[in-house]
Amino acid sequence: MTVEFTYTNGGVTAPKGFKAAGVKARIKYDKKDLGVIFSIEPAAAAGVFTTNRVKAAPVSLSMSNLIDGTAQAIVVNSGCANACTGDNGMNDARKMAAVTAQEMGIDATGVLVASTGVIGQELPMERIITGIREAAGQLSDNGGHDVALAIMTTDTVPKEAAVQVEMGGTVVTVGGVAKGSGMIHPNMATMLSFVTTDINIEPEMLKKALSYAVDRSFNLLTVDGDTSTNDSLIVMANGLAGNDRITQENENFLVFCEALTEVCITLAKMIAKDGEGATKLVEIAVRKAPSRQDARKVAMAVANSNLVKTAIFGEDANWGRIICAVGYSGVEIDPEKVDIYLGDEKMAENGAGLKFSEEKAKEILSQDTVAITIDLNIGEAEATAWTCDFSYDYVKINADYRT
Amino acid sequence: MTVEFTYTNGGVTAPKGFKAAGVKARIKYDKKDLGVIFSIEPAAAAGVFTTNRVKAAPVSLSMSNLIDGTAQAIVVNSGCANACTGDNGMNDARKMAAVTAQEMGIDATGVLVASTGVIGQELPMERIITGIREAAGQLSDNGGHDVALAIMTTDTVPKEAAVQVEMGGTVVTVGGVAKGSGMIHPNMATMLSFVTTDINIEPEMLKKALSYAVDRSFNLLTVDGDTSTNDSLIVMANGLAGNDRITQENENFLVFCEALTEVCITLAKMIAKDGEGATKLVEIAVRKAPSRQDARKVAMAVANSNLVKTAIFGEDANWGRIICAVGYSGVEIDPEKVDIYLGDEKMAENGAGLKFSEEKAKEILSQDTVAITIDLNIGEAEATAWTCDFSYDYVKINADYRT
Repeated sequence: MTVEFTYTNGGVTAPKGFKAAGVKARIKYDKKDLGVIFSIEPAAAAGVFTTNRVKAAPVSLSMSNLIDGTAQAIVVNSGCANACTGDNGMNDARKMAAVTAQEMGIDATGVLVASTGVIGQELPMERIITGIREAAGQLSDNGGHDVALAIMTTDTVPKEAAVQVEMGGTVVTVGGVAKGSGMIHPNMATMLSFVTTDINIEPEMLKKALSYAVDRSFNLLTVDGDTSTNDSLIVMANGLAGNDRITQENENFLVFCEALTEVCITLAKMIAKDGEGATKLVEIAVRKAPSRQDARKVAMAVANSNLVKTAIFGEDANWGRIICAVGYSGVEIDPEKVDIYLGDEKMAENGAGLKFSEEKAKEILSQDTVAITIDLNIGEAEATAWTCDFSYDYVKINADYRT
Repeated sequence: MTVEFTYTNGGVTAPKGFKAAGVKARIKYDKKDLGVIFSIEPAAAAGVFTTNRVKAAPVSLSMSNLIDGTAQAIVVNSGCANACTGDNGMNDARKMAAVTAQEMGIDATGVLVASTGVIGQELPMERIITGIREAAGQLSDNGGHDVALAIMTTDTVPKEAAVQVEMGGTVVTVGGVAKGSGMIHPNMATMLSFVTTDINIEPEMLKKALSYAVDRSFNLLTVDGDTSTNDSLIVMANGLAGNDRITQENENFLVFCEALTEVCITLAKMIAKDGEGATKLVEIAVRKAPSRQDARKVAMAVANSNLVKTAIFGEDANWGRIICAVGYSGVEIDPEKVDIYLGDEKMAENGAGLKFSEEKAKEILSQDTVAITIDLNIGEAEATAWTCDFSYDYVKINADYRT
């Protein structure tokens, strides 16, 4: 279905009834590193979390607090992941929720917690608590941007998006914020992202919509193939738009799914483009696959190939590495049917190379966004994945991150 | 079982009855780039090849020529992979076998072919044929080293190994050569490697021994997670040692398995240490796993983590990235039971960090070989994987490989 979106500003504070703040708690650096997002009314809430067996304490706590499908606040810090911190870590995450709840005058189970940063170090709780209190005092209708700043780690730009859609005369807004950069890989929420919306929707339907959106956005995103201990995507819907409550898969539900997906794709592409050391956004479209699942697998195999990513950084039209990744994707492709395009330029047909203009290829590869299209020619399904190129700076950033 | 090995020189020409040569065919560069290995008697032969759906022409041809379990010669070139080259590629591979057979006075089905280099370009057949004829004229009892030189691509050092074992008074020799560097990843032969031995063994038993050795060596090796279109490991056994022919899993068979494994592990470690841009060999031992398969999975997840590998390059004791990779390995580990050691230094216990000496950790990380040990504490099985660190130079080498 085609849905018309109006882009708007404000990120997570774009929808009605959401306030936010981001402050400097000085957890690791002298930057904004602690944020609070608050809905003035209790909200339906859903989340998708890392599939890593090693889950950070805040992930376990948030999963547990989401069982009832409702929440009213999110508290988040950067600079320390509170992962692999044992019982102390869980106590600290609980304390973050409790202090936030106290400040907001709500129950602690209504608070979701997220952390990002170095694994295996404990939170500096005194500074965290001071930070939460400060943030609570600064909550504002246009604080979304400060949260975007507070959750950045090696991100070089804050990541926010918001869209509005109409449902039978009612305007519904969806806003989101994300942080990405390294350790981005799917089969989970993929990174930290918080989405707010004023739509009126049942928790079960919100969960379904989130699953639809993630499958088409964050789960098709990879920066370095590492799946973090802390990845969390949370959505809160407070109902203040005033639409008829969505309780089934009607047209309004489908419109909402598209709006939510649009925000998630926008954030996912921002994350890919701002991958650690990235100089380019790479879009990999796989077409004519036997199933959407197969198309995804192929797209992600290419997106995860270090050899493809370094070639794109080097602006080298090495389509052989692309077909090689297609070949080991695990999908039963027919190598002799594969066509590969770089931008509009066809590089390979039926699995063998074509003569192509090196000059044209170089021009395509020198753009900010590089589009690779792979036609498997064994079906009708398609999927698009996003990644970035792989540069010296990825190594530089990650060679000495902890210290 | 404990087997005593005597290391010896000569690589693939160390065993009796093998001759080899490596020449400059000038396929891509002015270096030795074409090699021939020849057994003076027909040999039992077995191979393990890439699992990539996109298989280079020489791989398909060699697989087909190995069906009868015998071979007498190997012809190999670097500089061009002869992959994704369609029917022309298969004709060229056949031509390589035919010319070699003609020179050696044997049947073309007795020749195995291997190529490595850029994907999607056709072989310069005139130069190849001249090279094969030249090599055939130079075959010698100590030509193993020249083959090691001829198969190098981005390798910085030639890779050879040979060991001798005694079987009831008879000395049996196993020699091998390999090239690795980039695009090294298991579930297949992993790279190019040719192993020769003068043991007298039935083809079926040779196949079993190879499978045993690969499972403990090349399939536990990764450089960059990419599985090539050309990976081939071939072993030839010509029987000239004069031992009683091995037809069953007796003690001599087990001794041979260990000798073959020793050569393969030695070559695999050389490949890891010489991975593209590598500054260190990284050995990842996983212990106390529920099964060997699980231990392998965990070891390979850590070995494939770009974040672990960049941290080791940066000599940063970031054990959090190690446990993170353990967590997403797909094995049902218990995060709260995992212990992690860097060298002898225990970094984490029961999934949580310990206070450790940064100085000591830095010292361990500054060595040429870095040992990581992971105790899952949920079983008795173990496995060791090998990789290298991930440096600026990996990116540099791969950003502009094709042109």
